[in-house]
Amino acid sequence: MNKKILILGLMVAISAAAATSEALIEQAKRAGLKPIPEDRSALYKLIDNPKNPITDEKVKLGKQLYFDPRLSRSGLVSCNFCHNLSTGGVDGVDAATGHLWRHNPHHLNSPTVYNAVFASRQFWDGRSPDLEDQAQGPLQAAPEMAATRQHVEAVVNSIPTYVKEFRRAYDNPRMKPTFKDVADVIGVYERTLITPSRYDKFLRGCNKALTAREKEGLKLFIDKGCVSCHNGVALGGGMEPFPQARPYKYAKIGDFKGNKNGMVKVPTLRNILETRPYFHNGAVWSIEEAIRIMGETELGETISDKDTQKIKAFFGALTGKKPYVRYPILPPSTDQTPKPNLK
Amino acid sequence: MNKKILILGLMVAISAAAATSEALIEQAKRAGLKPIPEDRSALYKLIDNPKNPITDEKVKLGKQLYFDPRLSRSGLVSCNFCHNLSTGGVDGVDAATGHLWRHNPHHLNSPTVYNAVFASRQFWDGRSPDLEDQAQGPLQAAPEMAATRQHVEAVVNSIPTYVKEFRRAYDNPRMKPTFKDVADVIGVYERTLITPSRYDKFLRGCNKALTAREKEGLKLFIDKGCVSCHNGVALGGGMEPFPQARPYKYAKIGDFKGNKNGMVKVPTLRNILETRPYFHNGAVWSIEEAIRIMGETELGETISDKDTQKIKAFFGALTGKKPYVRYPILPPSTDQTPKPNLK
Repeated sequence: MNKKILILGLMVAISAAAATSEALIEQAKRAGLKPIPEDRSALYKLIDNPKNPITDEKVKLGKQLYFDPRLSRSGLVSCNFCHNLSTGGVDGVDAATGHLWRHNPHHLNSPTVYNAVFASRQFWDGRSPDLEDQAQGPLQAAPEMAATRQHVEAVVNSIPTYVKEFRRAYDNPRMKPTFKDVADVIGVYERTLITPSRYDKFLRGCNKALTAREKEGLKLFIDKGCVSCHNGVALGGGMEPFPQARPYKYAKIGDFKGNKNGMVKVPTLRNILETRPYFHNGAVWSIEEAIRIMGETELGETISDKDTQKIKAFFGALTGKKPYVRYPILPPSTDQTPKPNLK
Repeated sequence: MNKKILILGLMVAISAAAATSEALIEQAKRAGLKPIPEDRSALYKLIDNPKNPITDEKVKLGKQLYFDPRLSRSGLVSCNFCHNLSTGGVDGVDAATGHLWRHNPHHLNSPTVYNAVFASRQFWDGRSPDLEDQAQGPLQAAPEMAATRQHVEAVVNSIPTYVKEFRRAYDNPRMKPTFKDVADVIGVYERTLITPSRYDKFLRGCNKALTAREKEGLKLFIDKGCVSCHNGVALGGGMEPFPQARPYKYAKIGDFKGNKNGMVKVPTLRNILETRPYFHNGAVWSIEEAIRIMGETELGETISDKDTQKIKAFFGALTGKKPYVRYPILPPSTDQTPKPNLK
């Protein structure tokens, strides 16, 4: 008898939990949260750029160029230097640092390249519409890779393997890859850097994919209104007003105050526990503090320590599976390859 | 009748070529050239350090730490920054450059990590007996990774996965990895970075592994006496007198003139076509010029353009197969991990 009651009780509890999960999934969807599609053609549709379609050849080439430090003026700084695939797609320092050890002049933090494809715009001020366009920036920025368009073109065209691979990728036997072509294939590679996680499984209906605590965190995340900015597939990636009225404690670090319309790109929360430091100026190192400050600044609310911990637990479920990356052996330089310039 | 003569002629030519190859292999061996052993236990014996035996666990851990920029003061400079496995195990710049964009104070060039295990000593002045000891240098050098021992230990001990992996690798459930332990596993990883090539096949008796031109280059390489310094498995790696009497054209770049005994480590010639620029101060960018200067400076002989091209062809056969490297996803930092210091 007791055993029957226990079993009955368990069954009620399980179905109640399932019902709660279903309600939570519904609530999440209504709030604008979306999983990374499991279906490959749906995923492809989401990450592809019709103007520059993803192909295996472009991905392979883009990956090599993403890791190639020779594209930079010094020969030392690759895309991967600031957007390091081994450390959450970021550099782990507050202000992006590159050529001549110069820092970003606005003290801006390098955003993660993982899942950047899901953002509506690129750069903190959203000045770039897509990853292909974005990739042109750091290549040329004086405190980053500091290259000229001519340098990038000269490097790539001096290495026969690269030229051959471009010609194959674009089915153009006379192609001389341009600066834009280089940025384009790097952009294509970046489109593939997505990291599905247990959270996606949950949103697709798998009740057991999140722990009870993570679900509580997700519910708080929605109920408190975090989701009003951190939504979509990326849990971020849209443009929102830069918090001017209630600047947070460290807001004075750097002079960035949003773009000319006062807007700033909302960072993705995927892999957020791996992408310290936080905020546009990398001023905050603890996720608890970041959650608290966002509550105060954006929601006008003090989030309790207990709730902060639950939201943090939910963030843990956003840590995704990284793509398998074989470290590329790059085609060697030739006598025609421009010499690096350390100055 | 004519056909018979032709066939006979061909047979004579083939067996003559085989005989020539056998003689060349004998000559190479007498001159002190040695292949990378094909036999795994012979290879293991050659690359292992009995004081710090190679194990899968140490290699895995050492690889992660080799790629981990957080070991450096800034959090930006990993071992792989100067000894980049994607570009021949080097950085491709003349003087090693690291923390604060400082350069090696003696304008010394980063040697390749590939096959470094075959060298009798490490560093240009040979001050280090092995790779484990060597790895301690760049970690602490102010213009390289600029870390203190304490920083390295604090980083590794703040990351539970690293501690767990050290404890497993050393079968010591209470281990708190020290600075030396970190350098030790990095050294173990580096011991595995070897690149067998067609040249090794040839030395092991495979006549067809080298082209006729490459064989001519090898013969010149021996006959001219290059082999008096560039010998052994590494075609280099021993200590020889620094050329003081006949300094070459660019000798004045940097103040390095050998160690206190006037000795300098001979660079390996494996993968030499991938490791520009050349010489201890990275002053020479063309392999032809490097061959010519070495002939003049070390052998007191002008090597003709024709012979230089043949020797270069032989060097092409020293380009080896690189180990397959999966780019590691590093265990994330924690609140205990020391913050990077960009200054």
